[in-house]
Amino acid sequence: MIVTVTLNPALDLTYAVDALVPHGTHRVAAVTERPGGKGLNVARVLHALGEPVLATGLLGGSTGDRVAQLLAAEGVGASFTPIGGETRRTVAVVDAGDATGFWEPGPTVTAAEWARFTADFRGLLATATVVTLSGSLPPGVPIDGYANLIADAAAAGVPTLLDTSGPALRHGLAAGPALAKPNDDELSALLPERAAGRDGLVDAVRSLATGPVVVSRGAAGLLAVAGDDVWECAPPVAVRGNPTGAGDACVAALARGLRDHTAWPELLADAVALAAAAVAAPAAGDFDPETYRSTRATASVVAASPAGGTRARSHR
Amino acid sequence: MIVTVTLNPALDLTYAVDALVPHGTHRVAAVTERPGGKGLNVARVLHALGEPVLATGLLGGSTGDRVAQLLAAEGVGASFTPIGGETRRTVAVVDAGDATGFWEPGPTVTAAEWARFTADFRGLLATATVVTLSGSLPPGVPIDGYANLIADAAAAGVPTLLDTSGPALRHGLAAGPALAKPNDDELSALLPERAAGRDGLVDAVRSLATGPVVVSRGAAGLLAVAGDDVWECAPPVAVRGNPTGAGDACVAALARGLRDHTAWPELLADAVALAAAAVAAPAAGDFDPETYRSTRATASVVAASPAGGTRARSHR
Repeated sequence: MIVTVTLNPALDLTYAVDALVPHGTHRVAAVTERPGGKGLNVARVLHALGEPVLATGLLGGSTGDRVAQLLAAEGVGASFTPIGGETRRTVAVVDAGDATGFWEPGPTVTAAEWARFTADFRGLLATATVVTLSGSLPPGVPIDGYANLIADAAAAGVPTLLDTSGPALRHGLAAGPALAKPNDDELSALLPERAAGRDGLVDAVRSLATGPVVVSRGAAGLLAVAGDDVWECAPPVAVRGNPTGAGDACVAALARGLRDHTAWPELLADAVALAAAAVAAPAAGDFDPETYRSTRATASVVAASPAGGTRARSHR
Repeated sequence: MIVTVTLNPALDLTYAVDALVPHGTHRVAAVTERPGGKGLNVARVLHALGEPVLATGLLGGSTGDRVAQLLAAEGVGASFTPIGGETRRTVAVVDAGDATGFWEPGPTVTAAEWARFTADFRGLLATATVVTLSGSLPPGVPIDGYANLIADAAAAGVPTLLDTSGPALRHGLAAGPALAKPNDDELSALLPERAAGRDGLVDAVRSLATGPVVVSRGAAGLLAVAGDDVWECAPPVAVRGNPTGAGDACVAALARGLRDHTAWPELLADAVALAAAAVAAPAAGDFDPETYRSTRATASVVAASPAGGTRARSHR
């Protein structure tokens, strides 16, 4: 099964109000509770696709209990290592205009809790086909935490897919994951001097990683760098909606493809389509099946040769 | 022991942010969690005074578990009836300017859960000296819910103190609690045509209740109507701070006085002082001991004779 790691999960609360009035008091008309955090979105998308998946990571306190309950209610398999701190909440207050977000800080993880998680993680590798590593590291987890998990997985012969940012991304890339999926901004933050344009992005990827990398670029779609090969894929029509969780849907598709040794063109078209379908769904971790179907059928993949020329390829 | 009933408790969250920006995203610098709901404030104040107290009511879900944990961590005795719904949260976002509040709706209580609570409540009456009934009724609890609890307590010889509003207040008053503590606005809402001024307030009280009533009037202090007697008591100096929870501190003092058969002048001075001390403390359910001491020593009580004249009385 695909194991999704979420070290800093959250309970995502959405509050519907008529209009946000600073320094006013609001009766919340409706409350939505969801399991939150990028890795849990990956797990929920994979589960909705019918793929065997196990969500793991760190959960604590009654907020952590609630996250576990919500995952169980959706039928998503989970095996989390308990921590003493309280799992964070996020609150999105939605009015007619837009959403206003409040993000609690994550709990601090002790060295003993991290050691327990890494031991639990090594135990899960026996049944893992692919491991995804998503999101930020909570305080207390060493900055090379993902790098160590990548090394453990590699020792067990399990490929890893890394989706994080900042120093955790830099350290993780150095450990050689089977695939990494940063977004454009996350890559640029590591290389602020990088040249603009597609060639600058490709050079940046190659300076940071030796293995394959898929860069998500919002509505511009995906750019993949795998050895000498460079591929691009974008949705044929722009999809309007909520981009939160689109990157996680992309990771879900890439993880499945990694497991199935799917060829790059098919893999990228599937990932672009699932990300577009996530944009079309109102909440992160969900996707719109019709957008998924239609985008997958029409997304085209362009291969850029090492010499810089491009040629269109069908992915079917 | 004093039993405090909270049928619609809450987990109160306070988020510290730099500045609230509508439709922006905020990293919360600090999160405070507290047991919330008027009856839990009463229990916490009594516990801080060293009085034996037991908090009861309805709690559900992981939010309810968290409320129970927080009460236990403070050492407040509690015996709640579990419900299937999720206890509500309140979120107060505090920036340099002021607080912005978000109030979740309460869970719906089933008829079976209400029946279980009333049975549990009757069991607690054996050891109760006074019962306080505070706050709103959650959906599903019958509108005469407090009236029935008042009748049960009376049958067991236990005096009750009612602090609620709207139809629950009207029905509750009809059941004859030993004491009621509405505020001025809550009384006026039941009698929108009432005459202005102190005499109008006294007439309103007498038209709604046959038993004694203490009306809280914010910085104007307390007005008590007990048979032919009318008493007034206000803090000698205005206290600046957070008025949330001041009414609950007042109820705590009145409950203790009801148990101890404290004479009206002392009782009102104590209640005014504890309410002022609650205003001086930053969070509901806490109070400032120095303000309590100084206000209790200096608050003066004025008795209005049936003929309308007034004379000052010391409460010592």
